[in-house]
Amino acid sequence: MSSTTDTVNVRPDFAKCDGLLPVIAQDAATGDVLMMAYMNEEAYDETLATHRAVYFSRSRQKLWRKGEESGNVQEVVAVYIDCDRDTLLLKVNQIGGSACHTGYPSCFYREITPTGIVVHGTKVFDPEKVYKK
Amino acid sequence: MSSTTDTVNVRPDFAKCDGLLPVIAQDAATGDVLMMAYMNEEAYDETLATHRAVYFSRSRQKLWRKGEESGNVQEVVAVYIDCDRDTLLLKVNQIGGSACHTGYPSCFYREITPTGIVVHGTKVFDPEKVYKK
Repeated sequence: MSSTTDTVNVRPDFAKCDGLLPVIAQDAATGDVLMMAYMNEEAYDETLATHRAVYFSRSRQKLWRKGEESGNVQEVVAVYIDCDRDTLLLKVNQIGGSACHTGYPSCFYREITPTGIVVHGTKVFDPEKVYKK
Repeated sequence: MSSTTDTVNVRPDFAKCDGLLPVIAQDAATGDVLMMAYMNEEAYDETLATHRAVYFSRSRQKLWRKGEESGNVQEVVAVYIDCDRDTLLLKVNQIGGSACHTGYPSCFYREITPTGIVVHGTKVFDPEKVYKK
């Protein structure tokens, strides 16, 4: 695939979506889509500075340094921005082999089919042991 | 990868996010993430029934049958749902080779790097010719 460089920089448009932009995390090695979460501007800037995925937790209303509890951090290999500058795509190395709090490698472990769901993959950790009460 | 089937069906939780759930479209052949858009329940049901991606346009506030103007429809190969049932992942055959209104194959054609953006790929169509005024 061809690529061209441009010294113009492009920033996400945090004026949209109440300052919380959707972010897709994709496994840099396999291409599997791992999860979707949100970033505010602070999370975005910390992600770029540290090369570790930092999201904003809508339920907890604070920065969510992915893997801070489970150890399953995401090393950010590349950051892409979409045409409208309101969605981001991260290519990551998923440490620990799982992005999902359920223990499955990807949050998208269930396929919806006409005859029921198909579960893809197997749990790589037991959530009850990883997330201590 | 192992997979197991379950006759239990799972539906997206349209009670969340004001009934508009984010949907990631991924090229079924290459694994490239093509775009992100939204579905309401009507768009979701039509997508499953027709095997063509139908979104809900937030700007136009109506169903958006992807490709109805450009011809670049998305044939839906598989539908995945995330752990929280509030995000969907479609694996699609992107007819025409482009998902993006800019003419690039993917909406995520720009990589953000410390020295500027890198544009990946080349336009497969000219938007001014495809989207007639």
